[in-house]
Amino acid sequence: MPRGKPETVPEDGLTTRQRRHRPLLMVHTGTGKGKSTAAFGTALRAWNQGWPIGVFQFVKSAKWRVGEERALRVLGDSGEGGSVTWHKMGEGWSWIQRAPESSEEAAREGWEQVKRDLAAETHRLYVLDEFAYPLHWGWIDTGEVVSVLRDRPGTQHVVITGRNAPRELLDAADLVTEMTKVKHPMDAGRKGQRGIEW
Amino acid sequence: MPRGKPETVPEDGLTTRQRRHRPLLMVHTGTGKGKSTAAFGTALRAWNQGWPIGVFQFVKSAKWRVGEERALRVLGDSGEGGSVTWHKMGEGWSWIQRAPESSEEAAREGWEQVKRDLAAETHRLYVLDEFAYPLHWGWIDTGEVVSVLRDRPGTQHVVITGRNAPRELLDAADLVTEMTKVKHPMDAGRKGQRGIEW
Repeated sequence: MPRGKPETVPEDGLTTRQRRHRPLLMVHTGTGKGKSTAAFGTALRAWNQGWPIGVFQFVKSAKWRVGEERALRVLGDSGEGGSVTWHKMGEGWSWIQRAPESSEEAAREGWEQVKRDLAAETHRLYVLDEFAYPLHWGWIDTGEVVSVLRDRPGTQHVVITGRNAPRELLDAADLVTEMTKVKHPMDAGRKGQRGIEW
Repeated sequence: MPRGKPETVPEDGLTTRQRRHRPLLMVHTGTGKGKSTAAFGTALRAWNQGWPIGVFQFVKSAKWRVGEERALRVLGDSGEGGSVTWHKMGEGWSWIQRAPESSEEAAREGWEQVKRDLAAETHRLYVLDEFAYPLHWGWIDTGEVVSVLRDRPGTQHVVITGRNAPRELLDAADLVTEMTKVKHPMDAGRKGQRGIEW
C-alpha cells in the first residue's frame, strides 16, 4: 500500500482534492503537558502557509503563554507568512471597553467574538486556548459551540485545548489527541522553570 | 496550599532556586499527534528567554517540519530572542561532506554531533526530533544516550520526540508525556492537509 493512503475511503462523494481542503476541528485534551504547546506548534505551520491566525486565550492569568505570544507576534509582523491576531481574556478582551463582571461573562464574550470572526471568515486557523474549561464548567453551551463549528463557512481550521473537553465536543471533532502525563518533574518536587513552563 | 507548590519536597539538598534551574530531559512519545509540534512549541518559550536552541531532525525526509523550520529560522534571525541552529539528517547533516552510507550511519553521526554540542554547552535547549526511532531500532545505544545526558554539563534542556521511546530513556527522563490518538481524520479517509500536517 502506498504511504499516506488512508485505510478506508469514505463514500462522501468528495474528491481527494476536496478532502485535502476540509476544515478541521482539532481538540487537545488530557491531563498531560503539551496541549497548548502543540496547538502553537500547529500555528507555526499555518503561519508558514500564509494563513491569518486568530488566537483566543481563555485563561484568567494574562502572564500565561508569554513566550508563544511574543514569538507569534514577531512572526506575524515579520513580513513573511501569515498574520497573527492575539486576543487575551486575562487582560480583558481588547474589543471590550468595560471590565466583564466575572470570568464566566468574560469567557462568553470571547466566544461571541469567535462566532463573529467565524461568520466573517476572519482567520484560517483559530487557536481557542483553554476553551475546554468554560465548556466543561457549563459557562458556554457545548451544543451551541458544536453547532456553530459544524456550520462554519469556508475552510476555517479550529484547535481547542484544555482538560476535560466535553464528550459532545470530542464526538464532533475530526482529530482528538489526549496528552497523558506519564511523569512530571513537579511530582519529584521540582519547581516550574522559566523557558519551560512559561 | 499555595498554587504551584509541589506536593512533595525532595530531600536532595537543593534550594528552591536550584530546583528552578535544573536541566530537564523531556520525552514526548506515544502514537498520537503533537509530539513534535509540542516540542517546537516549547522552543518558542526558550526563544523568548533568549536561549540558543539547537534542533536535530532525525528524520529521513527533508520535507518534514518545513513550517516549523521556517518559523524558527525567522525567529532566530529576528534580532530578538535566542538563536536557532537547525540540523537536518534528511539532507545530510551540514557538517558532513560525504553522504552517509545508510540512515543508521546518518543517525549515529547526528548523535555524535549532539554529544559534541552538549560537551561544549553550545545550546540551552536541544530538540532531538524523532530521536526515539534510532534508539528503538537499536541504531544508537540507549544506555550510552542516558549516560551522556545524565552527565551533561551546565543547564542544558533536552526534548526527545518519537514513538516507542525505550523504557530506559523514559526512566531517565524528568518529564514524559504520552500523546494518545483518540481520533484522527485519516481514520475517516481524510487526506493529510497542507498547513496542518506539514
